[in-house]
Amino acid sequence: MHKFLPGLVPVLLGTSAIPVPAAAQEQAPLQTPDQIVAAAPAADWVRIAPSDLMVMNLAPDAKGSPRRVVIQLISKPFSQGWTGNIRKLAAARWFDGIAVVRVQDNYVVQWGDPDGEVPGKAKPLPDGLRTMSGLEYTADAASATDPALRRKIAALEKVAGMMSKVSDMAPAEVLRSRDPYALVTGFEAGWPVASDSARIWPAHCYGTVGVGRNLSPDTGTGAELYAVIGQAPRQLDRNIAVVGRVIAGMEYLSSLPRGTGEMGFYKTPEERTPIVSVRMGNDVPDLPGYAYLSTASKSFRAYMEKRANRKDDFYIQPAGGVSLCNVPVPVRALPL
Amino acid sequence: MHKFLPGLVPVLLGTSAIPVPAAAQEQAPLQTPDQIVAAAPAADWVRIAPSDLMVMNLAPDAKGSPRRVVIQLISKPFSQGWTGNIRKLAAARWFDGIAVVRVQDNYVVQWGDPDGEVPGKAKPLPDGLRTMSGLEYTADAASATDPALRRKIAALEKVAGMMSKVSDMAPAEVLRSRDPYALVTGFEAGWPVASDSARIWPAHCYGTVGVGRNLSPDTGTGAELYAVIGQAPRQLDRNIAVVGRVIAGMEYLSSLPRGTGEMGFYKTPEERTPIVSVRMGNDVPDLPGYAYLSTASKSFRAYMEKRANRKDDFYIQPAGGVSLCNVPVPVRALPL
Repeated sequence: MHKFLPGLVPVLLGTSAIPVPAAAQEQAPLQTPDQIVAAAPAADWVRIAPSDLMVMNLAPDAKGSPRRVVIQLISKPFSQGWTGNIRKLAAARWFDGIAVVRVQDNYVVQWGDPDGEVPGKAKPLPDGLRTMSGLEYTADAASATDPALRRKIAALEKVAGMMSKVSDMAPAEVLRSRDPYALVTGFEAGWPVASDSARIWPAHCYGTVGVGRNLSPDTGTGAELYAVIGQAPRQLDRNIAVVGRVIAGMEYLSSLPRGTGEMGFYKTPEERTPIVSVRMGNDVPDLPGYAYLSTASKSFRAYMEKRANRKDDFYIQPAGGVSLCNVPVPVRALPL
Repeated sequence: MHKFLPGLVPVLLGTSAIPVPAAAQEQAPLQTPDQIVAAAPAADWVRIAPSDLMVMNLAPDAKGSPRRVVIQLISKPFSQGWTGNIRKLAAARWFDGIAVVRVQDNYVVQWGDPDGEVPGKAKPLPDGLRTMSGLEYTADAASATDPALRRKIAALEKVAGMMSKVSDMAPAEVLRSRDPYALVTGFEAGWPVASDSARIWPAHCYGTVGVGRNLSPDTGTGAELYAVIGQAPRQLDRNIAVVGRVIAGMEYLSSLPRGTGEMGFYKTPEERTPIVSVRMGNDVPDLPGYAYLSTASKSFRAYMEKRANRKDDFYIQPAGGVSLCNVPVPVRALPL
């Protein structure tokens, strides 16, 4: 027998999940998160505008196969100064010819100008980039639109003034999140977010893309970026700008050789992976469409509940909870 | 300028952290988790017995470089039936010649007998392997020895009978953990664990090694193993046997090419990475010693606090909390 983990019937798992026919649904309730996603009606999927996609072509691998990474830029109200800069950098083809310079295990893959530190050799940045304040790492909580998220923020607001410590007093709706990093967590327009009732911010999860920067008060321009390849480094939340997430080709970043220098930087130029080009999605004719499962939909709620409470032929003990970053927002490619 | 993330002074980061001289310590408090680890006194480090180490040699990489992975087997009271089997399998050299058969991004790397499912071709298991019940995924909470953990479990026990819901009523010490998966979390003899007051169990974190199995009530033998390479899949806790963790060579597993078949299985034999040999540490003459930072030590407590509250030249906003799996237990190699 071939043991398998996580012990689901293979045909029901993964991105190749097979939709369950309606007749079968009537016979048996949807048992797994993937079954729920596969059964979600078309109306629950939100098309991502190609102009919000950044298509990054790494140099082909050792066998000559292409390596295309697709990044969705984050939407308002988050990090718009940085995503604006990134659009300018892409339009100026500034990213073409830079490289992956750092891969630190269980942390990040980072790319930028390898000569950025070398006096006189740094690649000049295009004109018109904005400089942001660290205040822009977060947004006004009043800008949240998701009903469930707004309800949780309102519940927290009610008692925020009275609370001396998180652990002493907090409304049930807030405590139920049991997030170690924030009083409120939820999803806003497809993005995992956290809030302290006054501010709201995107969370660092697996695949999150952020902006490398120097010591504070520097906030980075967007010319040097990283993607998370390990346990969610939520301590970076509110300390750095989140600008997007990898929605396709993540495996080309996460499987790169780890750097052996300080903090996972490569020690030699030969180890770096060149970035051939970065184009916005509307400039890439053969790019499939992409859609995410609306995080305000009933399907998403059911999916999240099932992620928190697996009980099926494999799972004997439901967890009774799930961490924010362990509810990856389902994204699918649409037929060309 | 070369932007860096996570914005620590490079010399203070990572396994190559430089110990801070005592004089410097008096001048400035230790600012980072790595500074705290580097300054921990020798007495706070616990030597790992070589007989508890499993040394797995993958086939050399494309350039002919060796790839040695070192796994620490978990200690009592956890999963002793499975680790007993693994010791027998290693003694019988059963693991020699099997392969990595599955790499699923943001989930697991899995190794076992590629022909395990093929009738008549499966590699025969040695005699004397035990079969365990799923009850052994957890241990009696009374067996916990860590003082902080015992205190939290006792606090929970006091109110467990009265609690209708986690979120409604729980002592401050319990709620402070704010873990989405369990009422109590902590560390037991160097291992991240969780508890519901009656039982205690090891948590699935990055690098955790567990036992592949078939559908329940199968619990696996230990002949097929996996290592976590992404966001902590805590939903597997209590559903599968945790038998250890990777303490060296993790990058050789985490950077393997992802499988393109169902659940990340490789589609062709050529894609698999052969496992040349597995030996227990006491049979490997050139193996360095390893030690972990005692999780009951003051150094570890200070390290954990700092992981939860970064505030330095880079971090402007301390998180105020940290998830169980975001406090990796420091392990270091000792001079040969």
